[in-house]
Amino acid sequence: MQRDFPELLNPRMFMNRTGQGRHFLQIPGPTNVPDRVLRAIDFPTIDHRGPEFQRLALGLLREIRTVFGTSNPVVIYASSGTGAWEAALVNTLNPGDKVLMYEAGHFASLWVRLAKRLGLLPECIDGDWRHGVDPSRIHSVLAKDLNHSIKAVCVVHNETSTGVTADISAVRAAIDAASHPALLMVDTVSSLGAIDYRHDEWGVDVTVAGSQKGLMLPPGLGFNAISKKALLASKTATMPRAYWSWDDIISSNEQGFWPCTPATNLLFGLAESVDMLNEVGLDNVFRRHIRHGRATRAAIQAWGLDVFCQNTSAFSPASTTILMPEKPDGSRFDADAFRRLALERFNISLGSGLAKLSGTVFRIGHLGDLNDLSLIGALGGVEMALHSCGIPVTRQGVSAAMDCLLEEV
Amino acid sequence: MQRDFPELLNPRMFMNRTGQGRHFLQIPGPTNVPDRVLRAIDFPTIDHRGPEFQRLALGLLREIRTVFGTSNPVVIYASSGTGAWEAALVNTLNPGDKVLMYEAGHFASLWVRLAKRLGLLPECIDGDWRHGVDPSRIHSVLAKDLNHSIKAVCVVHNETSTGVTADISAVRAAIDAASHPALLMVDTVSSLGAIDYRHDEWGVDVTVAGSQKGLMLPPGLGFNAISKKALLASKTATMPRAYWSWDDIISSNEQGFWPCTPATNLLFGLAESVDMLNEVGLDNVFRRHIRHGRATRAAIQAWGLDVFCQNTSAFSPASTTILMPEKPDGSRFDADAFRRLALERFNISLGSGLAKLSGTVFRIGHLGDLNDLSLIGALGGVEMALHSCGIPVTRQGVSAAMDCLLEEV
Amino acid sequence: MQRDFPELLNPRMFMNRTGQGRHFLQIPGPTNVPDRVLRAIDFPTIDHRGPEFQRLALGLLREIRTVFGTSNPVVIYASSGTGAWEAALVNTLNPGDKVLMYEAGHFASLWVRLAKRLGLLPECIDGDWRHGVDPSRIHSVLAKDLNHSIKAVCVVHNETSTGVTADISAVRAAIDAASHPALLMVDTVSSLGAIDYRHDEWGVDVTVAGSQKGLMLPPGLGFNAISKKALLASKTATMPRAYWSWDDIISSNEQGFWPCTPATNLLFGLAESVDMLNEVGLDNVFRRHIRHGRATRAAIQAWGLDVFCQNTSAFSPASTTILMPEKPDGSRFDADAFRRLALERFNISLGSGLAKLSGTVFRIGHLGDLNDLSLIGALGGVEMALHSCGIPVTRQGVSAAMDCLLEEV
Amino acid sequence: MQRDFPELLNPRMFMNRTGQGRHFLQIPGPTNVPDRVLRAIDFPTIDHRGPEFQRLALGLLREIRTVFGTSNPVVIYASSGTGAWEAALVNTLNPGDKVLMYEAGHFASLWVRLAKRLGLLPECIDGDWRHGVDPSRIHSVLAKDLNHSIKAVCVVHNETSTGVTADISAVRAAIDAASHPALLMVDTVSSLGAIDYRHDEWGVDVTVAGSQKGLMLPPGLGFNAISKKALLASKTATMPRAYWSWDDIISSNEQGFWPCTPATNLLFGLAESVDMLNEVGLDNVFRRHIRHGRATRAAIQAWGLDVFCQNTSAFSPASTTILMPEKPDGSRFDADAFRRLALERFNISLGSGLAKLSGTVFRIGHLGDLNDLSLIGALGGVEMALHSCGIPVTRQGVSAAMDCLLEEV
Repeated sequence: MQRDFPELLNPRMFMNRTGQGRHFLQIPGPTNVPDRVLRAIDFPTIDHRGPEFQRLALGLLREIRTVFGTSNPVVIYASSGTGAWEAALVNTLNPGDKVLMYEAGHFASLWVRLAKRLGLLPECIDGDWRHGVDPSRIHSVLAKDLNHSIKAVCVVHNETSTGVTADISAVRAAIDAASHPALLMVDTVSSLGAIDYRHDEWGVDVTVAGSQKGLMLPPGLGFNAISKKALLASKTATMPRAYWSWDDIISSNEQGFWPCTPATNLLFGLAESVDMLNEVGLDNVFRRHIRHGRATRAAIQAWGLDVFCQNTSAFSPASTTILMPEKPDGSRFDADAFRRLALERFNISLGSGLAKLSGTVFRIGHLGDLNDLSLIGALGGVEMALHSCGIPVTRQGVSAAMDCLLEEV
Repeated sequence: MQRDFPELLNPRMFMNRTGQGRHFLQIPGPTNVPDRVLRAIDFPTIDHRGPEFQRLALGLLREIRTVFGTSNPVVIYASSGTGAWEAALVNTLNPGDKVLMYEAGHFASLWVRLAKRLGLLPECIDGDWRHGVDPSRIHSVLAKDLNHSIKAVCVVHNETSTGVTADISAVRAAIDAASHPALLMVDTVSSLGAIDYRHDEWGVDVTVAGSQKGLMLPPGLGFNAISKKALLASKTATMPRAYWSWDDIISSNEQGFWPCTPATNLLFGLAESVDMLNEVGLDNVFRRHIRHGRATRAAIQAWGLDVFCQNTSAFSPASTTILMPEKPDGSRFDADAFRRLALERFNISLGSGLAKLSGTVFRIGHLGDLNDLSLIGALGGVEMALHSCGIPVTRQGVSAAMDCLLEEV
Repeated sequence: MQRDFPELLNPRMFMNRTGQGRHFLQIPGPTNVPDRVLRAIDFPTIDHRGPEFQRLALGLLREIRTVFGTSNPVVIYASSGTGAWEAALVNTLNPGDKVLMYEAGHFASLWVRLAKRLGLLPECIDGDWRHGVDPSRIHSVLAKDLNHSIKAVCVVHNETSTGVTADISAVRAAIDAASHPALLMVDTVSSLGAIDYRHDEWGVDVTVAGSQKGLMLPPGLGFNAISKKALLASKTATMPRAYWSWDDIISSNEQGFWPCTPATNLLFGLAESVDMLNEVGLDNVFRRHIRHGRATRAAIQAWGLDVFCQNTSAFSPASTTILMPEKPDGSRFDADAFRRLALERFNISLGSGLAKLSGTVFRIGHLGDLNDLSLIGALGGVEMALHSCGIPVTRQGVSAAMDCLLEEV
Repeated sequence: MQRDFPELLNPRMFMNRTGQGRHFLQIPGPTNVPDRVLRAIDFPTIDHRGPEFQRLALGLLREIRTVFGTSNPVVIYASSGTGAWEAALVNTLNPGDKVLMYEAGHFASLWVRLAKRLGLLPECIDGDWRHGVDPSRIHSVLAKDLNHSIKAVCVVHNETSTGVTADISAVRAAIDAASHPALLMVDTVSSLGAIDYRHDEWGVDVTVAGSQKGLMLPPGLGFNAISKKALLASKTATMPRAYWSWDDIISSNEQGFWPCTPATNLLFGLAESVDMLNEVGLDNVFRRHIRHGRATRAAIQAWGLDVFCQNTSAFSPASTTILMPEKPDGSRFDADAFRRLALERFNISLGSGLAKLSGTVFRIGHLGDLNDLSLIGALGGVEMALHSCGIPVTRQGVSAAMDCLLEEV
């Protein structure tokens, strides 16, 4: 008995707020996926064991290294960034290993939680969320770890929750200054392809990334860039692992294949995305993000609001976290009510406050496939939504952002 | 310095064998993705924390249960099917647990290997690859396991490597007859959405599936359907897990969300695919696959070749493995040379022989979005390629397949 | 001899200004095509003589009438709007017929030129481009045409070149007041689906439209909505015609077909577009355009620039034409240099001044699939580009537009 | 009042016969559109007056000449092929001009009808539909036309209704032998891009084409390739014309633009299609069509059916017309009942008999983006449907086609 055209789910109805024009996806990721990437993703799936796939994979696995700034292998998983966190740990460590994790934001905390669940012993540096990673604190912990019981140092390059970046080369210097052999693992989920990053030059051992931010893809791919030292560590590491095992993947990848079925269509998109990054030039991409971060902060300042990040040398070019202002009674205006109104009335998605910041901040993503006018539209949406919510801000933010964009092109 | 339109990867060049019409993707998966699903996947990514996503997810998580034949939760991962294998084990077992795994094909062996890597102790039933799973052997092992040291029984529903299916309800009966409390875990990666399957009715505890076969999606999603008993086991199971943890996902899913970023665009495709399965009716889908399996075997028999599966009640409706004929010297014709010629000259991808079958068999996938004429085209390609390779076959295969298709519509 | 992957045209390279985010297409048409419509257009072409096409066509030909406000047939051509102009004339008139054409803008003039080329004798009312159509002038001409030598009155509903609308019901009243039997033909190329329009209620005889504006489709479809009176006229009209002949099309359409091959894929898109208009409700669509026109004019006024249209009751909700300010020497700033800079630096396409307005005005399209934030982005682009060109404007335009948008939601 | 998600048309439901795999579109056009072309068509529409469009158009207008075999201009219309017929006539002739039209099939007759409606005086050669164009008959008419009252000779290169091709170079020779100055106009709607064609070399004055056949695009574009002589004729030709006027288009095209809005997205597709033809090489494309025509006729002969075309040197490589066999009572089996069953049961669209062939023939298109296996699938569908209808045919057709394909690769 066949049903007569049921419309149970009909995804097209959910994917497009009908009659409201193009949605402004200004969360700090997933970001706006370029039309070229979407058109690459929707090509028919091909045989992941055949010669066409092989040629594509070999090219892709070569070119993706450039994006990480490495000449060593980059492993690509069908997974979220969370999966890539797990992969970094289970490939290099032993059960019960101590790892030094710098908790300067919510995603850092989630990584700590994940490490614990896997049976590691995270030693946490309780970071200042508004100032970010202080490399000297890493140095001081490592300097005291004379027997080198700490096996890895884990840092988030761009804290999506706070909009604060970490100086990875300074972290490297701190580890070196302590002459400590710990592996350096860096989460670049929300920085790769948006903020200057150099896996090899900065001596990173495992770089963790995801597809849905600076790489301008839908979510679904996780990445590990791997140093020679990390690779060596993986030969003796005893944490149980299978899906995440680098060894099988790296040896299959050398032939242009994967040990298990890869996410073929997302790889099509990745190839297109890498082409686009190459066409523009990574330096230009980074410059654009810096410029948009600056314009966003100019707007915030003009509104009379506070950027959550208080470390001026650590402002994120990829996303900005904004504190809701206080009401006369000392409580803060409700960030989530504001975001709801922004979505319903102005068709813009903004990021919510996470963990202890829930309800008191909101976040603007300004990374991925974005240009000046999209940013102005997004900031206009924020300005109008703030105003509509009765939140006491000036109406000068968009103007200030335009001033900033006009200054340097 | 910006490069002048480099064409480093240009995925469109790899994805389409130019001027050769539509590719025949007849491996046993990934399968042919329907145009409607591709068009759903390429919609712009949306906020995975917003109300549109929530509505889509709630509907999808409800409807996907029907496909598994369960009223219990189905967990969806950004992963391959291999990831879903791992998830099934790490959520329910303890390090060092004994699991009874029926090795009746290559994928069963891979699952064994994975279990070992995770620190489990697989006890393997060395199955006959040409006859498949014999439930009585499971019964006999369990009956002897008086102290219930075996914690799970793992069976592959449709062995993609051999084209042999297992009778899951008989396996259930064998476990019950032994009054054994082991969990029953079933791999349906290449059967779900193609071959009748009933998670609840057959008393399966964890069903493992992937997106790229009967669900007619590109690869990139893994699934676990979970019984109440398995869920209970997961509360006390001590294997380390984080990414794969059911608990976070199930509780997030109740609100229509995921704990980490889900593969949004593949979920769009899944919603469309589930709509299509509902429009046709699962029973009709299963019938179509049975019919196509039968027609394929008719062709093989007419060519004078041997279907690898020798258990007539276990022929797979989803894919068929074919033995290459012997040469006068007793060796077999080279299956891979044949497949290469088929690809280059006739633009059809066929599956290779795996593990001990390498080079001596090839495989035809006849699952997913396929119809009679596509099947005839595919079988025509096989017939012409066999002939072109000088392999001694009759030229009656396609005719026999058409006879079969005409018999029952 | 086969060439080795030449990249002769590679349309993807032209279609996307790489690394510059989404293009702002703010010409007064073609307009921004919604993602849903693009995804409908790219479905595989089907048999235009088969039952699926028939069902789609019958539904479409029924629903499209609502958009025109008519219960009479609407004829759809594979053509531009220019073709639909020609169709309106050749189906209803005789060679040498006199037609009264109100020239209040460039497109009206082009229609006059087309009528002349077809052998008609246009009698032109030389309109004031800044005030638009004055129905009393039509009345006065018709009242003098005692022998009814004028066979048709041609008016443009929304003059894309000037941003001035005409009051069609007043034109109808003027014709009626003169008791003149001339047919009323109205060009709605840039108004249909954006500005309230009522073919039947306003007594229009032939409505001319195109796909690429308010209908939110790519260009390639032309339309004629036809009154009973016009249909009757067509039975005796002697202008030579074949491709444009209503008779064959209307009789084929009754069965759900076309006499020659229709532009199938654009019809797919039209069906989706009509669905979207229905989901939103035409009244809401019209309201949105009025609101966006108002916000645009608020910006222009705040910049200190002049809206070209000087008739406050005729401001176009679909597009606005803006005068470049004068330089001290009395000449005007170069509109085309400004538009070039806007495109290169801010990735926005604006409309040029046409005919006598060339170089002295530019045009902003605010019709089709647009929302508040896209409009703010577009106006931000105009403001920044004006500023970058050294054109003396205030920096208050975007703010004023936001004020306007906030006033009425 | 907004309706709650009505599903009035939902084109996705009509475009895909759910659960039936990929449709076999085997009418003689529109043909199967390659995935690459569909993905090009669905890119966002761009400004047709901007520099990106200009670059694309200049390249396209240059490369499209190669496809026609000409170094002279090719004019592209938003229209069907019928529109391009009209354009050829109205640009070059005067009202009442005599044109010699060779009626050897239904499309030739339609062209005659169109010429009459435009006020021309067609002198028809009543051709033998089963043998096609006899150039000597053209010669004999022209030789008698001493005062050169005949202004043009109109011939269809590939008669889609009959599957018979005309020898255009022989037609040219016949005209030359009569030393007659008439223009030579050739309809290549169903041959261009599928059958060798040489506008310049064969001395054709106007070549008429459409997008939806060998060019592998959806319908919606019409073409005129124009010789110097035809262009000269157009300077003095007095037939009324506007939309179709070459002069405006050619002069706009020189700058990379069109006088009215072109069908931008179909031009995107055309650019991709031309790229694909160039990648394969036109000679290879022609060879493939010849081979597929031969295989199709082999099947027909093996079934015991008659190819409609009886002129062995005029078999069409693009499409084949097949006579239904006679029943004992002398009437023929019903072709339309057969086609209906083929569509419903086997998901294949076949062409119907046109005009006097209605109900007694059916047509198989084997042009466009097709490969051996798709053809085998299609012929399998025909064989099974014939059999299912109880039409007395052998079951050897598909085998015979495969023999033929195997002979020459």
